[in-house]
Amino acid sequence: MATTAYPMQTTPRIDPLDPPHRLLMAPGPTNVDPRVLAAMSKPTVGQFDPYMFKAMDEVQTMLRSIFKTNNTQTMVVDGTSRSAIEAAFVSTIAPGDPVLVCCAGRFGMLLKEIAERCDAEVHVIERPWGEVFPLEQIEQAIIEVKPKLVATVQGDTSTTMCQPLEGLGDICHKYGALLYTDATASMVGNDLRVDEWGIDIATTGMQKCFGGPSGMAPITVSDRAVDVMEQRKSIEAGVADGAQEITTNRIRSNYFDLPQIFDYWGPRHLNHHTEATHMLYAMHEAARIIVEEGIDNVIARHRLNGMAMSAAIEGMGLKLYGDQSHRMNDVIGVVIPNGVDDAAIRAQLLNDFSVEIASSFGPLKGTIWRIGVMGCNARKDAVLTCAAALGNVLERNGVAVTPGKGIEAALAVYEAFESGN
Amino acid sequence: MATTAYPMQTTPRIDPLDPPHRLLMAPGPTNVDPRVLAAMSKPTVGQFDPYMFKAMDEVQTMLRSIFKTNNTQTMVVDGTSRSAIEAAFVSTIAPGDPVLVCCAGRFGMLLKEIAERCDAEVHVIERPWGEVFPLEQIEQAIIEVKPKLVATVQGDTSTTMCQPLEGLGDICHKYGALLYTDATASMVGNDLRVDEWGIDIATTGMQKCFGGPSGMAPITVSDRAVDVMEQRKSIEAGVADGAQEITTNRIRSNYFDLPQIFDYWGPRHLNHHTEATHMLYAMHEAARIIVEEGIDNVIARHRLNGMAMSAAIEGMGLKLYGDQSHRMNDVIGVVIPNGVDDAAIRAQLLNDFSVEIASSFGPLKGTIWRIGVMGCNARKDAVLTCAAALGNVLERNGVAVTPGKGIEAALAVYEAFESGN
Repeated sequence: MATTAYPMQTTPRIDPLDPPHRLLMAPGPTNVDPRVLAAMSKPTVGQFDPYMFKAMDEVQTMLRSIFKTNNTQTMVVDGTSRSAIEAAFVSTIAPGDPVLVCCAGRFGMLLKEIAERCDAEVHVIERPWGEVFPLEQIEQAIIEVKPKLVATVQGDTSTTMCQPLEGLGDICHKYGALLYTDATASMVGNDLRVDEWGIDIATTGMQKCFGGPSGMAPITVSDRAVDVMEQRKSIEAGVADGAQEITTNRIRSNYFDLPQIFDYWGPRHLNHHTEATHMLYAMHEAARIIVEEGIDNVIARHRLNGMAMSAAIEGMGLKLYGDQSHRMNDVIGVVIPNGVDDAAIRAQLLNDFSVEIASSFGPLKGTIWRIGVMGCNARKDAVLTCAAALGNVLERNGVAVTPGKGIEAALAVYEAFESGN
Repeated sequence: MATTAYPMQTTPRIDPLDPPHRLLMAPGPTNVDPRVLAAMSKPTVGQFDPYMFKAMDEVQTMLRSIFKTNNTQTMVVDGTSRSAIEAAFVSTIAPGDPVLVCCAGRFGMLLKEIAERCDAEVHVIERPWGEVFPLEQIEQAIIEVKPKLVATVQGDTSTTMCQPLEGLGDICHKYGALLYTDATASMVGNDLRVDEWGIDIATTGMQKCFGGPSGMAPITVSDRAVDVMEQRKSIEAGVADGAQEITTNRIRSNYFDLPQIFDYWGPRHLNHHTEATHMLYAMHEAARIIVEEGIDNVIARHRLNGMAMSAAIEGMGLKLYGDQSHRMNDVIGVVIPNGVDDAAIRAQLLNDFSVEIASSFGPLKGTIWRIGVMGCNARKDAVLTCAAALGNVLERNGVAVTPGKGIEAALAVYEAFESGN
C-alpha cells in the first residue's frame, strides 16, 4: 500500500467547539431546551443496568401519552427522523407489496423513495405543493390500488401544510390497509391522535417540536401493524436460545428490524444495538417537559406563536404561502418578494442577528422562506426577535416592508390571547 | 376506534433522571469522558450553518488520523455501531453478490446475518470461539468463493480476540475482493492501520475506546470501495436538480445510502438526514482527546491497563479466557470458576460497588466474564477498583481467591512500565 503520510502529521491543532449562539427559526433543527442539554450530561449507565430499563420504560410511558396511544410498541429508533420511517417501511413491506403514497411535497417524495427501495409496488397520488388531500381522493386510490400500506405525511415541512388525518384510519382498515403517518415536523406542534384516528404507525423526530437534538426518532406501532411485522420476525443468532429462528420473507434490515427492537424494549430486553444512552436521556427530559406542560397546552402554544408569526409577516407587508386553513401551527411559509436575493437575505440575517430561517426544496427553492416556531422557540420573544430582524434586513435591502407594523400585529395576537378573545 | 383513556391520565409524575454513578468495566458502553459530556451541551446550530460544516470537516480530519487513513470518505453514520456495518454492507453488496464472512464469535454471526439480509450469497468460514483466523485460511476461502467482499471482525467482544489484519488487504485485492473490518470494540484500543493494511471499509462506534456515548458510528471507505458504491448511486428526488438520477441496482436503503451520505458530508452538502448535532459535538471532543494524547499513546495506554487487569485476574487466582497472544488490549476474558453463580456475582458487584462487568453470549454465556478497560476507564484507579471489588465479592461468596495478590500483580505491571522495563 501507499506510504503517504497520515493527515495528522500535517493537521493543525483543532480547537474546542465554540458554536455561535443562534436563534434557530428554520423548521428544525431548533434550539435544544437547556433542560434537555443538562439531562444529556448525566452519568452513563450500562445497557443492562436496571436504571437503564427504568429510564426506557419511562420514555415509553411518556411517549404513549404524547402520541395519544395505548400501543405497547412505542419507543425510539436510534437514528434521525428518517431512520424511523425506514424502520416502519422495511419492517412492514415485503418486496412486491402494494403501497399507496400520498405525495404533496418533498417528504411525500421521500416516502415514495423509501417504499421503492423496499421494492414495494409503489402507487403515488399527488396534490400540488401547498395543498392537502381530501380524504375522498385517498379513499378512491385505496379502492383502486388495494394497498397493504397507505403512507402519508402529516406535516410536510417543504410546503408548511398539515394533512387532516381524522377518519383516515377507518377508511384504510375498511379496505384492509395499514395507515402510516410521518409526523416528524408536525407532532407536538399540531394535534395527533394515533388511537382515535386509527393510525397504525406514526414516526417523528426530536429536533423539531420536541425541542431536543436530532438523532433519535420516536415511533409507535399498533397491534394490527405489529402482527404484520411479527410474521417476518427472526431472532439474531448471537442471542437466540438454541437455533436461530428465521421465517420466510425475513425483514431486509437488521438495524431497522422492529420486532427485534420490540424484544429489546420489551420485558425480555434481548440485546440488539446498544441503546444511545445520552440521547435517551435527552428524550426522557424532552418528554418530561411536554408532559409537565400538558400535550394539549404545548400544541396550543405552538398554535398561538405560529399565529403571531404569521400576523407579523402579513403586518410587515409580506405574503403568506399556501392554504392558511391547513397550515401547520409550527411552520410559516413566506413568499419571497420578487427580485429579492433569498440567499443574501438569509446570510445577512444569520451574520447580523444570528437568526436562522430556511428556504425550501424543489419547486419552492428560493421562492419561499420557511419560519419555524418549534419546541422552546415557540415563545413570544423568539417570534418578535425573528420578525424584527427579518423586517430590518429586508428594509436595509430596499424591500418595501413595515417592520413596526409586523411587531404590532404579532403583539395584538398575544394580547387577544391573554385577554381571552 | 376504542375510546380507552390515554395512559397519561393514570400515569404518575415522572421524576427527573438521576442515574447512579457507575464504574462501567463491561466491554462497552463505557463511562463517557466528562469533557465529551460538556461538549454535548454546547449551543445548537442549524444543519446548514457554516459552523456546522466546520465542525463536520474537523471531525473528518481527526477521524482520518485515528483510522490512519487518507480516505476522503471518512465520517460518521447517525446510529449505533451496527448502523455503520449495515451502511457498509447495503451500499456495497447487491443481491446475489458473493460475500465471505469470517466468523469466530457473536459479531461474526452478526456480519453473516446482515449480509444475508442484503440477499448476498453468503459463505462463512469459522474458527472456534477464542481463536483467530490464520490469513492462509482466509486466502484459501477467497480462492474458492471469489467474494466481492470479505467481512472480518477485528475485535470480537464476545470472545475478547483480536484478529490480525496486516497483509489481508493485499490478499483480498489480489483476488478482486474488497476488505471490510468491524472495529467497533477494538479501535483506539488496538492498532488499526486502514491504509497500510489495505482495509477498504472500517466501521466502529463511540461507546467503547472512543470514550463517547453510544449512537454515532465512525466509518471510512477507500476510493476502491467508493467506486463500487457509486455505481449504485441515486440522488433523492426532493433535492436533485432536475429529474431524479436513478441507476439500476439502486442501494436498498435510503438511510444507509453511503453515496448520499458522502454528498451530505462533501463540499455540496446535499441535504440527506439532519445531522445529529449534539452527538457530533460528542464525536468532535472524543476525537480531540484522542488526537491530543496521540493515537499510538492511547493504544499503548489501553494495552498497559489491559495487561494490569489481566495480571490482577491471574494474581487473585482466576483463569484468563482465550489465546492471550491474540487478546484485545481492551477486553479481558475471565473463566467463571465452577459452581459460581454468574448473575449473582455481577448483581452484587453492581449493587455494592456500582461496578459493572459483563458475561458473554452464545456458548460463552455464563462461562466467562468480560472486563473492559476502555476510553477514559483505561486508567490505573479504574483497573484497581474493579479488581478489588471483584475479588471482594468473590471472597464473600466463598470462592478461593487472593484479592490482595491480584492488586499487587497489577501494581507490578504499572511499576514495570513506569521504570521503563
